[in-house]
Amino acid sequence: MGRITARRRVTRMTVGHGASVREDYLTVEEPLEIRVAGRPLAITMRTPGHDVELVAGFLVSEGVISRADHLSSARYCAGATVDHLNTYNVIDATLAPDVKAPDPNLERAFYTTSSCGLCGKASIDAVRTASAYDVADDPLCLDAALLASLPDALRDQQKVFDRTGGLHAAALFDGRTGDMLVLREDVGRHNAVDKVVGWALTADRLPLRETVLMVSGRASFELTQKASMAGIPLLAAVSAPSSLAAELAAEIGMTLVGFLRGDSMVIYSGAERVRGKTADEASAVSSDRPVKESKAGVA
Amino acid sequence: MGRITARRRVTRMTVGHGASVREDYLTVEEPLEIRVAGRPLAITMRTPGHDVELVAGFLVSEGVISRADHLSSARYCAGATVDHLNTYNVIDATLAPDVKAPDPNLERAFYTTSSCGLCGKASIDAVRTASAYDVADDPLCLDAALLASLPDALRDQQKVFDRTGGLHAAALFDGRTGDMLVLREDVGRHNAVDKVVGWALTADRLPLRETVLMVSGRASFELTQKASMAGIPLLAAVSAPSSLAAELAAEIGMTLVGFLRGDSMVIYSGAERVRGKTADEASAVSSDRPVKESKAGVA
Repeated sequence: MGRITARRRVTRMTVGHGASVREDYLTVEEPLEIRVAGRPLAITMRTPGHDVELVAGFLVSEGVISRADHLSSARYCAGATVDHLNTYNVIDATLAPDVKAPDPNLERAFYTTSSCGLCGKASIDAVRTASAYDVADDPLCLDAALLASLPDALRDQQKVFDRTGGLHAAALFDGRTGDMLVLREDVGRHNAVDKVVGWALTADRLPLRETVLMVSGRASFELTQKASMAGIPLLAAVSAPSSLAAELAAEIGMTLVGFLRGDSMVIYSGAERVRGKTADEASAVSSDRPVKESKAGVA
Repeated sequence: MGRITARRRVTRMTVGHGASVREDYLTVEEPLEIRVAGRPLAITMRTPGHDVELVAGFLVSEGVISRADHLSSARYCAGATVDHLNTYNVIDATLAPDVKAPDPNLERAFYTTSSCGLCGKASIDAVRTASAYDVADDPLCLDAALLASLPDALRDQQKVFDRTGGLHAAALFDGRTGDMLVLREDVGRHNAVDKVVGWALTADRLPLRETVLMVSGRASFELTQKASMAGIPLLAAVSAPSSLAAELAAEIGMTLVGFLRGDSMVIYSGAERVRGKTADEASAVSSDRPVKESKAGVA
């Protein structure tokens, strides 16, 4: 419970220099079983910590709940033991009486709607139908310079990263001030986002209007979907988005930013929310830094 | 079908330099529904291409099949259409008559065995039970220098990477010669590995004795599990492994290598399979290069 890193004896080897044995830190990965009213719904491989938020965010992402009062409770299952010790790897959620329980036989909400003509379009339509919140009319508008400052803010707060090199981070920022509202880390990018969304649900802050969700790696369809379900109008990623992430963002009116590094970024949809300098302002700014075009490093 | 990249108009913005609109390439991500004997089993978000291999490898990873003759056929579903056009996003697999079909209600094979005391140990035990192949007695033994050459070989062959920055790669090497046997790319790391394993199943090459599986990012429990199910004795990753990946590898006798970059690597289990230089040999080698300790870049 809350064990984020684990120590392990490893062998470090350098070609031509032989081997040395030492202790190293690894990111902890453990299964978490999510139950609703005692019925198993899903297992996710996650880094322990903020598990209740993870469950809450997962249920938001799946379209099961969308407000704090939809979730009555979420507790570690006392019966989930190994050698009579609680594993803290099973959480049972209780929904409010008026909330429809998910069908554990269906992996995803969009699964039911896709019928036999499964395609990206069907997935996008399903997300649009399923989300309780509309991000298209979100008034968020922010300077490119503020956006460019977020990756450093995220990295500064990533406490565990430098120790293991194995954690993804997701952080939520106030889009008007640039203040970081919450940061969560996990071995799985989708879990880090679920923890952020779960934090927001628990604090009764959904929908997350005028916020920015920043992720340490790439932007997949799944992450864009999660941001949509939480009403987040801008998703920014350090690396590349996928085609379906860009299509979904464009369809629902979300701003999607990728390759947010140094002073530059690529905007895949909703560019009107990002204020750049005008030509006059730009010429008044002196900058010797070359524009980086590198796309090295899948993350 | 086979569409790996998609073009899209994007806005490139640099702080202080304003914006420019241009065309960019994105990695295609589309859902693939996997059916067995007409019954939906799973949906994965993947990059189209090598879909039959993906299905075959997925079924190996799930413990459903372990030999080429276990899979009678795998075909795009002709009924899966949008606007009367095949989406090429649904594949139906037919198993040999003596192969037990998977239960679509159970997400993972280990799910059934974990009972209420779900923990990493239960997951590891389940994988050990489920794999048809034992990697502990694999005679693979190779030089650290050969291992250190694999990341460059992988990158040289990654055709799409530089265009989109959004693809993961998995490549299989002959552990005796260092020859690359196959490389697959996908928006999902697990899909890239499934495609490699599916290629091997289709070529009737399972178990993959004396091979090395190299992945472009991190090594999770899931990837280690997939390598185990295919009988691969050595998994190498450019970035960090998770704690459970290292524990699983140690338990089943797999060699797990992480942070394989430049001349150096960290070996988390099975270090006896990697030959380094002896102290005498090392002193005869001149090298000015400092040992890189950087762990920047989650992938």
